[in-house]
Amino acid sequence: MVLKNNFADRLIDAVDKKKNPSSVGLDPDFSKIPGSLKKRFAGSCEDPFRSAAEAVWEFNKKIIDAVCDIVPCIKIQIAYYEKLGAPGIEVFKRSSDYAASKDLIVIADAKRNDIGSTCAAYSSAFLGETELFGTKKRVFDCDALTVSAYLGFDGIEPFIEDCKNYGKGIFIIVKTSNKGSSEFQCASLKEGGKNFEFMGRFVSQWGKDLKGEKGYSSIGAVAGATFPREAEILRKIMPDSIFLVPGYGAQGGTARDVMPCFNRDGSGALVNSSRNIIFAFKDKDDDENFDSYARQAAIAMREEIKIAMQREGICRWEV
Amino acid sequence: MVLKNNFADRLIDAVDKKKNPSSVGLDPDFSKIPGSLKKRFAGSCEDPFRSAAEAVWEFNKKIIDAVCDIVPCIKIQIAYYEKLGAPGIEVFKRSSDYAASKDLIVIADAKRNDIGSTCAAYSSAFLGETELFGTKKRVFDCDALTVSAYLGFDGIEPFIEDCKNYGKGIFIIVKTSNKGSSEFQCASLKEGGKNFEFMGRFVSQWGKDLKGEKGYSSIGAVAGATFPREAEILRKIMPDSIFLVPGYGAQGGTARDVMPCFNRDGSGALVNSSRNIIFAFKDKDDDENFDSYARQAAIAMREEIKIAMQREGICRWEV
Repeated sequence: MVLKNNFADRLIDAVDKKKNPSSVGLDPDFSKIPGSLKKRFAGSCEDPFRSAAEAVWEFNKKIIDAVCDIVPCIKIQIAYYEKLGAPGIEVFKRSSDYAASKDLIVIADAKRNDIGSTCAAYSSAFLGETELFGTKKRVFDCDALTVSAYLGFDGIEPFIEDCKNYGKGIFIIVKTSNKGSSEFQCASLKEGGKNFEFMGRFVSQWGKDLKGEKGYSSIGAVAGATFPREAEILRKIMPDSIFLVPGYGAQGGTARDVMPCFNRDGSGALVNSSRNIIFAFKDKDDDENFDSYARQAAIAMREEIKIAMQREGICRWEV
Repeated sequence: MVLKNNFADRLIDAVDKKKNPSSVGLDPDFSKIPGSLKKRFAGSCEDPFRSAAEAVWEFNKKIIDAVCDIVPCIKIQIAYYEKLGAPGIEVFKRSSDYAASKDLIVIADAKRNDIGSTCAAYSSAFLGETELFGTKKRVFDCDALTVSAYLGFDGIEPFIEDCKNYGKGIFIIVKTSNKGSSEFQCASLKEGGKNFEFMGRFVSQWGKDLKGEKGYSSIGAVAGATFPREAEILRKIMPDSIFLVPGYGAQGGTARDVMPCFNRDGSGALVNSSRNIIFAFKDKDDDENFDSYARQAAIAMREEIKIAMQREGICRWEV
């Protein structure tokens, strides 16, 4: 059965339209946003959390404006919003809505996980809707959410239901980009294979009923740019899953490293860079024009990946 | 080295003071709070999310008032607040502060996890502080946080640093209470043992430098009430870790089931029940007095556990 209004289909369309399989990570750590912005917003509201959140909103809006014709997708890391309390969460929502209004796919990077009844609540926050006084309301209404499946299928099921019902997606963390990720994820299992491969097989299996017209499932996987060998293994285990690939740039992943994340027709992966794009102004003397540096960095990333794809013979578009 | 202002010491003191090793889970799913409260708050604010959040706040305040002399601790499941957007998060903060003002230990159940730099942001939200315009501010300022260590030690390190610096604690998910938790957590490893035991060994090792005067570490573990045999194994692997034990009551865990979570002197575990306490009014015809039913249920739970401890010969207090 092919699902209509399928997240995977929408993501692939957006990637093909922009000819760019990359996304910008909106991780606006308040301590790192331009000093000129902080100065402008200091004392702007009575609550310093709100002042800080408004500065972040200004930052995000300009970044979104600067990259929205370059990338198909924005990944928003919610930790940097939670750090600013409730005003931060409000700006998370505002940023997500604004990105959606610019035709960007919005992935909430929140790595949520819990038992089923609790995940149903998380899922209604990020993907589905919640009933308030007899009326159903969208809460954050993102296109997709990153989740962890350490708790097993019953913790993932509510997300999958909302993916079906609302045309949304999830990316289950399989092999993460951090240096120490192998400590647990590469432990060898008695039955053969390692923990990350075991998790990959679950992802493939759980995603079977959520395939769209292009053959990909809305249940994707997180596979770090920093582990190309593991990505190669995972690509075989999950041929029909889209890989969300963090760790490009600041964390050390290169265009060459991410090539194994793609299928041999050049589809199936979305490479994300956060710090290298949004904080590109840090190398310069001029923090007022942070947005144009971000745009340049997003373009540079697109070109790097396209060139690497061409070398590999898997580029879907003219360079 | 013994840490002063140690979370484990504070928690054990609070348990001994109340003679009660249990906690109430503040999981106020809006769909389940009393109809009389919903009616009262419908249309109370322009934004229905805010109306709903205010109804939840009223519910929480009454529950906290009703149980604060019975239990040493409140566990707040953030999913039910995220479901109400930014107003929900504000009520999460308000509820946490209110519980703290009633001398309750507050555990944020959020199961956060990510790479190090992102976990530093989560940690400053829940445990540490964040710098805004040159001033350090507490954000949610909870006593402890549940986290997942699928990403390995470098994702846990920022939390551990804040535990040391601010006298806070974390509970790492090891064996969870949900039915399907064995799917991944009980996979057998080549080197021997299962995934949950492997995780338990990490918890024990990572917690070594955070022990307080009572010999327990501030790095604890989540071990579900529904898996007594696994708890018995884990108790040996982590003799100096406090177990946070969810799954009592609604999920099927009994007083007898949780006994293996304690050390043989009756210390070392905190048993949590959420739905069975806060929604105890559901069995009754009278939803106006939801708080007194919650109080009765909290007392009943305390007694059940104390009786089971006495039978086991591990009760630290007179019954």
